[in-house]
Amino acid sequence: MRVEGVWRRSIAAGSDRRSVEVIDQRRLPHAFVLATLRSEGEVVEAIRSMMVRGAPLIGVSAAFGLAFALQQDPSDANLAQACARLIAARPTAVNLAWAVERVRALVQRLPPPARADAAFTEACALAEADVAACAAMGRNGLPLLEAARRAKKGNGPLQVLTHCNAGWLATVDHGTALSPIYAAHDAGLPVHVWVDETRPRNQGLLTAWELRQHGVPHTVVVDNAGGLLMQRGQVDLCIVGTDRTTARGDVCNKIGTYLKALAARASGVPFYVAAPSSSIDLRLDDGADIEIEERSGDEVRVVEGARLLPPDSPVFNPGFDVTPAALVTALVTEHGVCAAERGAIAKLLGAA
Amino acid sequence: MRVEGVWRRSIAAGSDRRSVEVIDQRRLPHAFVLATLRSEGEVVEAIRSMMVRGAPLIGVSAAFGLAFALQQDPSDANLAQACARLIAARPTAVNLAWAVERVRALVQRLPPPARADAAFTEACALAEADVAACAAMGRNGLPLLEAARRAKKGNGPLQVLTHCNAGWLATVDHGTALSPIYAAHDAGLPVHVWVDETRPRNQGLLTAWELRQHGVPHTVVVDNAGGLLMQRGQVDLCIVGTDRTTARGDVCNKIGTYLKALAARASGVPFYVAAPSSSIDLRLDDGADIEIEERSGDEVRVVEGARLLPPDSPVFNPGFDVTPAALVTALVTEHGVCAAERGAIAKLLGAA
Repeated sequence: MRVEGVWRRSIAAGSDRRSVEVIDQRRLPHAFVLATLRSEGEVVEAIRSMMVRGAPLIGVSAAFGLAFALQQDPSDANLAQACARLIAARPTAVNLAWAVERVRALVQRLPPPARADAAFTEACALAEADVAACAAMGRNGLPLLEAARRAKKGNGPLQVLTHCNAGWLATVDHGTALSPIYAAHDAGLPVHVWVDETRPRNQGLLTAWELRQHGVPHTVVVDNAGGLLMQRGQVDLCIVGTDRTTARGDVCNKIGTYLKALAARASGVPFYVAAPSSSIDLRLDDGADIEIEERSGDEVRVVEGARLLPPDSPVFNPGFDVTPAALVTALVTEHGVCAAERGAIAKLLGAA
Repeated sequence: MRVEGVWRRSIAAGSDRRSVEVIDQRRLPHAFVLATLRSEGEVVEAIRSMMVRGAPLIGVSAAFGLAFALQQDPSDANLAQACARLIAARPTAVNLAWAVERVRALVQRLPPPARADAAFTEACALAEADVAACAAMGRNGLPLLEAARRAKKGNGPLQVLTHCNAGWLATVDHGTALSPIYAAHDAGLPVHVWVDETRPRNQGLLTAWELRQHGVPHTVVVDNAGGLLMQRGQVDLCIVGTDRTTARGDVCNKIGTYLKALAARASGVPFYVAAPSSSIDLRLDDGADIEIEERSGDEVRVVEGARLLPPDSPVFNPGFDVTPAALVTALVTEHGVCAAERGAIAKLLGAA
């Protein structure tokens, strides 16, 4: 996507094949700062600190991290240890393990001297595949937005609510949930986005920054406001991303997603989830079995350097919640749109 | 309630009968700062800026403001204008208009020279009545908490979730929603409170401060987290305050309350509303007819002096939402507990 006139991706392989350039997302929306990562340790720390975040992006970042680890030491032992360290950087998003396992499966059959280069090439391929998948989710989701606009009374823009950031910053390009919105905007469909602030890490500010860069009308609201907006008929559809989708269609996404899904159901608003196939974990059925990352209470106690709560104040800070499949109108994947139910998901993935 | 060993109320009439002492709630929880208000203008500004906040407290504050206005000019014209200005300070909470109208009804029959003193005396009486009503809500709500603890498996504390601040800071003393919690804690019932942060004004931090002062175990969570807690069975009951309750039991309270009521219903968690009779507006039936205050976007853009969003970023900042009566398990009033439905409410108020 374009940042002040320059086309960028959220991660770019260095021409030296020993580095990647990323955006330090902790500095956005206040400052656009690039960072270069050159080692597995730097990648792990970038993922853990949320310098890079978003399920698809941390998957691709980890793939590069594994390549860097193998550049240092391509032995079987280091391969196994590096995979374990990278996968442990954050527990909830399945894309992270998925990407690392993809690279591991490829390189473990190769003689050690060939591993690092193959891993780097595979990481680049995963990045390209992510761009293609996100573009496809945009194309596949666009008809849903067009239909919602047609069904809408009056001439106002289509009103879309989203939670967290599932835009190009969270992927390599285009985004997941935001990809159909960009596609609609680019196709001339009038669209306005209600952007949930998304405490505690305020990823909604990243979404607002992205939408502003692309010229998409939007309004930021606190996470508490979406229920009122839906009660008042000011939301035509919701669309969010997912960090892990189970075989039966339960969706684990940023904390607070479930509350919006409840409000959407209560007000008859469609609730879509943009779910790349890399986010679907067929080994799990019940979303309650997904490990929910618990993050530091300091993310709640301190906002942009301002202290809200004393250091010793008790805080609980879970990163994700689970929206039951019954509340999900449909999944938008790179292979097409399908119901959030076992048979439909299996069929879509089987046909792909 | 006690603050560092000293018994305090959130508002206290000056012995000169020409001032009130309040707590500057914008400075909490970081600093405990008292302020003295001496004119109607200062009271209006204190209400508007949320130096004083909470439906019952702004009602009592406005009553004192009207006394100050009449000390300056007890004419019919000024009486009418002062009432209008005070009522307009914030639109949603009905207690504000209720308290001002109570004082007006009393003083407008009096000759102008007698009005100011009578108004001040009535404001003091309203403050005392609020203390008594809040204490009664504590007594009336306590059996609900005791029953919930008895129904609970295991020996853990009763887990209560609350939104915003409906504690003694929001009233003159004791609080509305927190009053039964204080009563339970004081009666030796083990209770732990999940405190919603309550963006954008973070009144949850006031609740955490209050609970800490009183020694009640609690944990702060972002507003997004309550759904997960309820799905996991970590909440035994919710209790919140109300800024306006309609004749049929719809409850208008701090933005985000509705989302918690939806989650409570989905997980089978009782959702109680502590509603002093001064919050019940029998002229309204449908909560959708309540005017929802829209506040400055800067409350979202800037937190504790830290800038989250550029000054020109579009923000929508509604202060309240409406929880339909169907999601409310019961109302806890100073006259007793009743179902959130027309007949039960009318009967309770009629019997009072």
